[in-house]
Amino acid sequence: MTELIDRLTGTSATADFPGSQKTYVQGSRPDLRVPFREVHQAPSQGAAGPVDNPPLRLYDTSGPHTDPAIKVVPERGIPPLRRPWILERGDVEPAPASSGTRLRARPGRAPTQLRYARDGVITPELEFVAIREQVPTEVVREELAAGRAIIPANINHPELEPMIIGARFLVKVNANIGNSALVSSIDAEVEKMRWATRWGADTVMDLSTGKEIHTTREWIIRNSPVPVGTVPIYQALEKVGGKPEELTWEVYRDTVIEQAEQGVDYFTVHAGVLLRYVPLTARRVTGIVSRGGSIMAAWCLAHHQENFLYTHFEELCEILRTYDVSFSLGDGLRPGSIADANDEAQFAELRTLGELTRVAWDHDVQVMIEGPGHVPMHRIKENVELQKELCQDAPFYTLGPLTTDVAPGYDHITSAIGAAMIGWYGTAMLCYVTPKEHLGLPNRDDVKAGVIAYKIAAHAADVAKGHPGAQLWDDTLSLARFEFRWEDQFNLSVDPVTARSMHDETLPAQGAKLAHFCSMCGPKFCSMRITREVRDYAAAHGIAADEAIRLGMKEKSHEFLERGGSIEVTAAGGRDPAPLERQP
Amino acid sequence: MTELIDRLTGTSATADFPGSQKTYVQGSRPDLRVPFREVHQAPSQGAAGPVDNPPLRLYDTSGPHTDPAIKVVPERGIPPLRRPWILERGDVEPAPASSGTRLRARPGRAPTQLRYARDGVITPELEFVAIREQVPTEVVREELAAGRAIIPANINHPELEPMIIGARFLVKVNANIGNSALVSSIDAEVEKMRWATRWGADTVMDLSTGKEIHTTREWIIRNSPVPVGTVPIYQALEKVGGKPEELTWEVYRDTVIEQAEQGVDYFTVHAGVLLRYVPLTARRVTGIVSRGGSIMAAWCLAHHQENFLYTHFEELCEILRTYDVSFSLGDGLRPGSIADANDEAQFAELRTLGELTRVAWDHDVQVMIEGPGHVPMHRIKENVELQKELCQDAPFYTLGPLTTDVAPGYDHITSAIGAAMIGWYGTAMLCYVTPKEHLGLPNRDDVKAGVIAYKIAAHAADVAKGHPGAQLWDDTLSLARFEFRWEDQFNLSVDPVTARSMHDETLPAQGAKLAHFCSMCGPKFCSMRITREVRDYAAAHGIAADEAIRLGMKEKSHEFLERGGSIEVTAAGGRDPAPLERQP
Repeated sequence: MTELIDRLTGTSATADFPGSQKTYVQGSRPDLRVPFREVHQAPSQGAAGPVDNPPLRLYDTSGPHTDPAIKVVPERGIPPLRRPWILERGDVEPAPASSGTRLRARPGRAPTQLRYARDGVITPELEFVAIREQVPTEVVREELAAGRAIIPANINHPELEPMIIGARFLVKVNANIGNSALVSSIDAEVEKMRWATRWGADTVMDLSTGKEIHTTREWIIRNSPVPVGTVPIYQALEKVGGKPEELTWEVYRDTVIEQAEQGVDYFTVHAGVLLRYVPLTARRVTGIVSRGGSIMAAWCLAHHQENFLYTHFEELCEILRTYDVSFSLGDGLRPGSIADANDEAQFAELRTLGELTRVAWDHDVQVMIEGPGHVPMHRIKENVELQKELCQDAPFYTLGPLTTDVAPGYDHITSAIGAAMIGWYGTAMLCYVTPKEHLGLPNRDDVKAGVIAYKIAAHAADVAKGHPGAQLWDDTLSLARFEFRWEDQFNLSVDPVTARSMHDETLPAQGAKLAHFCSMCGPKFCSMRITREVRDYAAAHGIAADEAIRLGMKEKSHEFLERGGSIEVTAAGGRDPAPLERQP
Repeated sequence: MTELIDRLTGTSATADFPGSQKTYVQGSRPDLRVPFREVHQAPSQGAAGPVDNPPLRLYDTSGPHTDPAIKVVPERGIPPLRRPWILERGDVEPAPASSGTRLRARPGRAPTQLRYARDGVITPELEFVAIREQVPTEVVREELAAGRAIIPANINHPELEPMIIGARFLVKVNANIGNSALVSSIDAEVEKMRWATRWGADTVMDLSTGKEIHTTREWIIRNSPVPVGTVPIYQALEKVGGKPEELTWEVYRDTVIEQAEQGVDYFTVHAGVLLRYVPLTARRVTGIVSRGGSIMAAWCLAHHQENFLYTHFEELCEILRTYDVSFSLGDGLRPGSIADANDEAQFAELRTLGELTRVAWDHDVQVMIEGPGHVPMHRIKENVELQKELCQDAPFYTLGPLTTDVAPGYDHITSAIGAAMIGWYGTAMLCYVTPKEHLGLPNRDDVKAGVIAYKIAAHAADVAKGHPGAQLWDDTLSLARFEFRWEDQFNLSVDPVTARSMHDETLPAQGAKLAHFCSMCGPKFCSMRITREVRDYAAAHGIAADEAIRLGMKEKSHEFLERGGSIEVTAAGGRDPAPLERQP
């Protein structure tokens, strides 16, 4: 698979990120190593000769797939990093039905990150995310224990590199993959997972609905360095021939156990679609647009009974606790159009999700809450405020929202607007929307376009929230831009491949990458060159601008490095072989 | 040129918009006809047979270029619609230097839309925009007279279809075109103008800096149905060999007159870059990034004198009044990075722009104010509030802003986020940013990508502001989507070509366009189909959802049509030949 993707893209594991190295920050034990991508920079031309620029360390979601020191054999999966951590705690035993290859909780134990945090335990998973986010472990523990953040980490997904979802941490991005009855294949879906995490997806959801649903999922999980989410009702529906009215609690329960033992990290569960809420959608312009929501609505109507996910919710909590699967409480009645935003059906369901959040917490199960959908800008904030209130600050996980319905083909943009805003207001994770939303299944290009648009939205939110270290990325790239360090500008960008190729289109010559002008104005006339002269003038009059700017950047950089601990470099990943600046 | 563009794109004037017709709403005089694009819809399948759906009328910026009844000969330009309106007022005379082909004000007269509005005159231009925006003429007159809106409309640009820029009206989009010293050609620039207005650009700015600057501009204006803006200092700089320090007021003045007599509708003037503000930029990460701003800063430093645009501002007002050119007061010290947003240099200049606004108004000259740039989300609102306060509600015209610096290659997205927000907060016009920003000169694809991203941002802002009729577009498209009227969904979208081609990628067969399912779920399993069943169930229990929804849409539609007056159809533009529903 690795070779396949590389052949298709004409790249090696790290070639999309020239000038970068995969590095690991060492934690408190030898097997706790937190990955980062470190981007090197060329020196600046100072008045008294070259001035070194420190490397910039970026959050890295791509896992072993981009580590040149690790040879990934997809048929065997990536290394089971967390296996010893899980076993050492002594809370698990082999699951009988799996011939001992899968784990479950020992009787009476709750091997969930929520329970550990409540007990004051600093798990390796917790320490991992603390280093990754550059915040103290105690902050992470408090947020977890209070239910304001989750670490989705099934005990049967040891390959996972732990990450955290919560409003006090970096805003995360989920990418949906998964085939449908009509198109796609297993290989293609695993490849999409690898591709999505390469560009920054923090979790993936496997939304497959075809026949190979179990096998597809197994391949994805065994190779996924990020949490994998699913919507179990999709597979349950397959098992009853696609007829919602034939669904039963028993079929659903068995499906959930099957998936939990495979290692799914979070389940979308549409337990808030209550019978009495269904008619509230009848006068909507676009009715019910959630697949899971419409399945449960159809079941409720066919039987004229309450949603079995709601009536069996406590049993469901017991199962999820057994494997430390997190709930992602689905918004089955989310609005599918601007006209339907923030209506009674949507908010009635949200109130029920708040009630279910408390039930899950009582069972030591981690919870996040899904949100819309399609919401005009002036109604976005209300969604976050109401969710925080009703769900007692459980993390919010929204699909976009799209801020207008009129642009099919561009819904990564209509929704990146809403996603950035809702992230700033306090949403913890953003589910991406690709350009193909409403039109077809995303291909590789669409997956990349969706992930990049959402990395932009999430980072813009991090900057607006004042997350420690977030703006250092912007400042570092902008200084490189101002100093005409073209290669650094490309290498520091979210997508170095695209940045470089767009520059090549106008100025293909290699010399242009060294030029102190750009294509917008040409060599004779350049605003940045003139600014340079302004600054020299200021310097001649006693305003040492360059030093002041560089000092400010250095302080931010030190802050960053001091929190992260020591650096270990595995291999040279890019074209810039300059040695790493090691900080105390 | 028309043929060239059609050959290149393989389209005819209206082929990008199938199912649409160019229509005109008749005003109070025979030569006052306001263009719209009317999108036809297929009937819905109601319980008692087909139910007609009314056509949707959309704002149309593309001018005669998309009217099949008009044969545009680019060498002669498009028809001079406004010529009789301008001459009838009796305020103009031939300009001597132009051999009588260009106009100027008669001595003592102020032929500006601001002066007319202050005098209580409803000009044809004013009536045109009132019909276009569907607001009463008196509202338009009041906004104009108070300086809260402008109609950029040079008396030497009679080809213009009038439009209005102000916070109480639809949010507008500007597209920058123009060659540089390195690449591009006159033909390509005219083609870009036509291409940009086809996709929805409300104005274009010609930012050419090459040798053919005068001729390029002439071609663009003669063929442009939208206002054309320029930055006269660029051409003035050409005249002094590209050396800022050799600029003089006299060279600049002559350039301004030359361009005003060609018909430029608004000038960016960097009169707020004062000598004492220049050192405030020295400690910025990215200094001065505005070309015009850096030219004036360099001039001020070289001469150690005050900016001549500031010291000669009243003379400049006299010139602009003579031709009804509007000021676009440039923000030469706008931030070029997140780090530099909302700093003292930026806001010091804004205070000066507020002072100059009052001077321009004293001379009956229309004014708008340019704004940033690069601003993180949490600092956007402050920009609008301060601008409104300091500039007494003169329209704000911002470049983006970009909400993060880290995504060169995707700055149409980083900035669409900021643009949508700042539009919602009250910005009247958004200057687009293309994916090539910071990297190279935009080509046709980049221009389209930029315009579409900004139409999305502007429309999202219109919806959030509650502009009358804005959400009807969303509701109409969403209902078509819900009812599986695929062709209608494509035709109603901002880019029917892309929407259709993305659907074709997954389901190319023509039959799929009629299918009551889509590629995301396949035929067996479809949330929208299930919702249909929910609605039927509700209907069987006395909740007549379909009628309620349709009634709501019809009310909005009537409202729309009643404001607009009667409809005149020039020609069948699309594949759906259904007759227009004429409303009283």
